[in-house]
Amino acid sequence: MGLLVVGSIALDSVYTPFGETADAPGGSAVFFAAAGAILHPVQVVGVVGADYPLAALKSLEARGVDLSGVEQAAGESFRWKARYSYDLASRETLETRLGVFAQFRPKLPAPFRKARYAFLGNIDPELQLGVLDQVTAPALVACDTMNYWIQSKRDLLLELLRHIDILMVNDSEARELSGDWNIYRAARWVLERGPKMAVIKQGEHGALLVSPDTTFKVPAYPLQDVFDPTGAGDAFAGGFMGYLASTDDLTLPNMRRAMMYGAAMGSFAVRQRRRSAGSRASCGPPGRRSPWEK
Amino acid sequence: MGLLVVGSIALDSVYTPFGETADAPGGSAVFFAAAGAILHPVQVVGVVGADYPLAALKSLEARGVDLSGVEQAAGESFRWKARYSYDLASRETLETRLGVFAQFRPKLPAPFRKARYAFLGNIDPELQLGVLDQVTAPALVACDTMNYWIQSKRDLLLELLRHIDILMVNDSEARELSGDWNIYRAARWVLERGPKMAVIKQGEHGALLVSPDTTFKVPAYPLQDVFDPTGAGDAFAGGFMGYLASTDDLTLPNMRRAMMYGAAMGSFAVRQRRRSAGSRASCGPPGRRSPWEK
Repeated sequence: MGLLVVGSIALDSVYTPFGETADAPGGSAVFFAAAGAILHPVQVVGVVGADYPLAALKSLEARGVDLSGVEQAAGESFRWKARYSYDLASRETLETRLGVFAQFRPKLPAPFRKARYAFLGNIDPELQLGVLDQVTAPALVACDTMNYWIQSKRDLLLELLRHIDILMVNDSEARELSGDWNIYRAARWVLERGPKMAVIKQGEHGALLVSPDTTFKVPAYPLQDVFDPTGAGDAFAGGFMGYLASTDDLTLPNMRRAMMYGAAMGSFAVRQRRRSAGSRASCGPPGRRSPWEK
Repeated sequence: MGLLVVGSIALDSVYTPFGETADAPGGSAVFFAAAGAILHPVQVVGVVGADYPLAALKSLEARGVDLSGVEQAAGESFRWKARYSYDLASRETLETRLGVFAQFRPKLPAPFRKARYAFLGNIDPELQLGVLDQVTAPALVACDTMNYWIQSKRDLLLELLRHIDILMVNDSEARELSGDWNIYRAARWVLERGPKMAVIKQGEHGALLVSPDTTFKVPAYPLQDVFDPTGAGDAFAGGFMGYLASTDDLTLPNMRRAMMYGAAMGSFAVRQRRRSAGSRASCGPPGRRSPWEK
């Protein structure tokens, strides 16, 4: 019951009110795999540069993540720098350096092509479509995106919607994509364009699972300490998809249970303090370790 | 099993993206009573000016609201004017005219003093304390407030907290009062100052019931059409308190059920189009009538 993720493998530099981190291992595929592998083995497709701290990925391998789809290319790794607002509710991207990601064309190892569950992390919709072409008979494909692609590759994104089962985005992305501020109308807009369901992530307020007939809301776990929201959405996706893959049950009650697993994994992610690569600097004061921190 | 509300009886002029209304009957006591009386008879204490359209209150009376605590005084009624943002998530107060409210000193009719359930709507904390002094043996007192009182009468508000059971405010008020952006820490801050519970209203995201041991979240009803959020919080309070008064059961499971009734009443309130007093102007296009609209 293969569970595939294609996405970024990044080095993040993040400023929060509680501290900062420099070149910390991150990216959508990493956060997804770290969370998902707690529930089900994960197959990762992505690319890193020559400068990537491979030890960070090895720790994923130890918990059952298959990295045979991760290429290492000459050049710099993908880097992302951002600053969060005082209440962590919004963030500003300070810098994005694509590095080896600019030339990346995902190529799935043969065993990955049979994955029944696939998550297309937030990358160019053209690459997401390219991945879909290589997966032979998926039971469920979920997909993330972001404002950058909504603005720059809208047509390809709409084409992608016709071929996926679940669009999994945050509320501002759903609003921007649909042009409708009402989140339930925005979700309907998505459902009219292909996906059977929409998962709308709402940060501290939880997440919605919207299907043509029903709406289900899972609250976020009530956390009094949040250090770094980076990757919470991908960890949510990892929990959601990992639970579905481990149960192989796509009935609505089980999808709702999967939402709970997603919320739990998202809550672990935001409590996580991340070590900067090659240093002891950390994001936030020492706290309880996240379940996937080595 | 008396259910008492003390609060404003206002004439609201509200601009929303869908229309505007002028001098529409509103105010915290009116919204509370309209919602609460669906579940349990409500006793209202408040004041109106000589210019108030009493017919609007008579329609409340028809559904079991006791208005014997409403005074009519010489002078103008309390008026409030506001404009909502395009997504209805925020609003700007354009004008507040206290009118007869400036001299108002709530005086409870003898039968009201025996109320077991009391809601102190958003008025001067000094008046809220004055009401509390007149209620002889309440089983549960809940209380609302707003930024204006948090800033101008903080000491009295803290005194009030020592004497009430539930503080019921929206998330921005909880944050401003506690000085903490994390809503769960803000709720704990409140609980350390007297109340047994805090109810935090979060608009389209629902509401939280926080007690020392547990946190319960009720989602907002997923509405695709929202016309005017004015009074949603008071309607929530009316549903919450009305259900508790009708069941007279203060166990936690029943409090949680009361949260569901609150959310339902809040959803009716925001779908409501309100008629301007003496005109056919309405807020929003014709929609389904709210259950308390005559």
